[in-house]
Amino acid sequence: MDHAGRLSRLRSEVEENNLDSLLVTHLPNIHYLCGFTGSAAALLVADRGSILFTDGRYRTQAKEEVRNARVVIARKSPLVAAAEWLAAQRRSSTAVSVGIEPESITAGMRDRLASVLKGKARLRSAPLLVERARMVKDAAEIQRIRWAVELGASLFRTACKKIRPGVTELEVAAAMEYEARCAGVEGMSFPTILAAGARSAIVHGRASSTPIPRRGFVVCDFGVILAGYCSDRTRTVHVGRPSQEARELYQAVLEAQQAAISAVRPGVTAGEVDSAARRVLRRRKLARYFTHSTGHGLGLEIHEAPRLAAGQSQKLEPGMVVTIEPGAYVPGKWGVRIEDVVVVTSSGCEVLTPADKELVIV
Amino acid sequence: MDHAGRLSRLRSEVEENNLDSLLVTHLPNIHYLCGFTGSAAALLVADRGSILFTDGRYRTQAKEEVRNARVVIARKSPLVAAAEWLAAQRRSSTAVSVGIEPESITAGMRDRLASVLKGKARLRSAPLLVERARMVKDAAEIQRIRWAVELGASLFRTACKKIRPGVTELEVAAAMEYEARCAGVEGMSFPTILAAGARSAIVHGRASSTPIPRRGFVVCDFGVILAGYCSDRTRTVHVGRPSQEARELYQAVLEAQQAAISAVRPGVTAGEVDSAARRVLRRRKLARYFTHSTGHGLGLEIHEAPRLAAGQSQKLEPGMVVTIEPGAYVPGKWGVRIEDVVVVTSSGCEVLTPADKELVIV
Repeated sequence: MDHAGRLSRLRSEVEENNLDSLLVTHLPNIHYLCGFTGSAAALLVADRGSILFTDGRYRTQAKEEVRNARVVIARKSPLVAAAEWLAAQRRSSTAVSVGIEPESITAGMRDRLASVLKGKARLRSAPLLVERARMVKDAAEIQRIRWAVELGASLFRTACKKIRPGVTELEVAAAMEYEARCAGVEGMSFPTILAAGARSAIVHGRASSTPIPRRGFVVCDFGVILAGYCSDRTRTVHVGRPSQEARELYQAVLEAQQAAISAVRPGVTAGEVDSAARRVLRRRKLARYFTHSTGHGLGLEIHEAPRLAAGQSQKLEPGMVVTIEPGAYVPGKWGVRIEDVVVVTSSGCEVLTPADKELVIV
Repeated sequence: MDHAGRLSRLRSEVEENNLDSLLVTHLPNIHYLCGFTGSAAALLVADRGSILFTDGRYRTQAKEEVRNARVVIARKSPLVAAAEWLAAQRRSSTAVSVGIEPESITAGMRDRLASVLKGKARLRSAPLLVERARMVKDAAEIQRIRWAVELGASLFRTACKKIRPGVTELEVAAAMEYEARCAGVEGMSFPTILAAGARSAIVHGRASSTPIPRRGFVVCDFGVILAGYCSDRTRTVHVGRPSQEARELYQAVLEAQQAAISAVRPGVTAGEVDSAARRVLRRRKLARYFTHSTGHGLGLEIHEAPRLAAGQSQKLEPGMVVTIEPGAYVPGKWGVRIEDVVVVTSSGCEVLTPADKELVIV
């Protein structure tokens, strides 16, 4: 991974924002910038180089993972250690401006930092500089996302084999997760959603001990973390013979999904992609059953910028990786969602998820 | 669960702290107070009753889970909706005092709240009222922790069966996690630690694709979430015949662990329990290899108050549930950790974890 390039580009942006340094506290941002994956850290990105503050538990790990920053092992909170370091550095008579990530630092911690710095540095809420950089993935990142996405194909095959009336949702999820772990994933990227029968109408229907009924939809929404990067895929299968109405619902969601995929290209706004899906469902009188947004970026985190939602003005750019996942949910009755991961290319997009989207009947 | 009692006790404390209301943002605190388990919420605890703010995804779930608070479905961030509600409520001419949880709200969100409230309410950092209440578990909570802890016994048996030279750490963890899922757990309470051979010296050695060597320690540290409550257990087994030195290391850690357990009783400070373990290891010249604290509270979260660490003055009380987990780690060579969950009783403590602590040799 190009940590050196990322840090150097960030340093320019820090300067353009009239900041002397940026105190990075969001752990995925730290991972992105210097490779460190521990659970306690603060990264100070400054003109004269970067310093990673962590604690004694991560001495060995920091040495192995971090290449482009100096490592300081703190005996206290890494963030407080960073503040003390800053307070000790002051040379000129004017206070330096230190950017903080306001959405990734607690209010209590900001107060503590301010009291350690006692006016020797001014804390300023910085824009989401690292999150913005992370929106556009480089080739190495896209490769990792591809690995994670491709592993999902075999997990879905396992789900199709396991899904039978009477088997619990949890048993299906357990089999998928077991396979994922044996394949070497760090973990699932979110709690596996396995929602059968009437539960398929619950958007976030985590696998439960409910047995799969003899007939109805089963929404399978799952993802893994492999080599640090997330995948996310939803397929909806049908147990037993689907009614004409069920087939039509499925087709409508599939068409909406394909319309959104077709809309993805550089220069289009995230909101326009969302509209493309919504338009199809509106024609089918299903718009009110599509109760969430069309998709989200993914990478080191399962939910990243951009959000593909109504009114979002963020323009798509080559290298952005997003999910496209419209759905329709009729409370108490049923639900369908179909989700792929796509990467924006110079002329449109490439769908990373295998195209196994015809309605599977088990 | 006694949500009504918890909310009513909290309301008294809010008043004692000269606050008109408390805006609870830490999700486990919200779960504790009103039963809601969704991922987006703010709970306003006020004199005239409590209000849970969440979003449209959780309409059905909130209705099912929440009994002692009114539910408001927000079209925006639940926290911003709560602030707007507060701003609209103001009746008297003096600004009301609203407590916030400074360690569970981002600096950016506090700024947004302040700007929504525009002086109509004063935000004040509240003490950790809910966390303090959560330290002492009631009988229903202890029962749930007991279930979660007891499930660990069979997972450890699975580990002992699976651990063989050449099998990867991940394969062992996968088998344990599969069994846990089939038994109905919501998830593991933290990434399973399976650290074999020289890796056993890494305190946070998450299961990796490293094969288990022919000889050496394997640290297994794992926990589940069952009915909302966490368990946590560490056992260290030895593959192949242990040397005299290995046996002595194991015995020393076991003695330290037993000394700490013996020290647990009401009125003793958390720091004294930590000292009890450390004293044993110091006598064996192993103190410098014990690089973490002796334990932590657990419940709805895997790490809660109190911390059993050097200098901690928190006194133990009946109903507190803590881990006791000393260890010794010689970098590059090996490590041992033994961990139980204990509940403080009126005269001492009860060890919830089955007493399978003799060195298992596989």
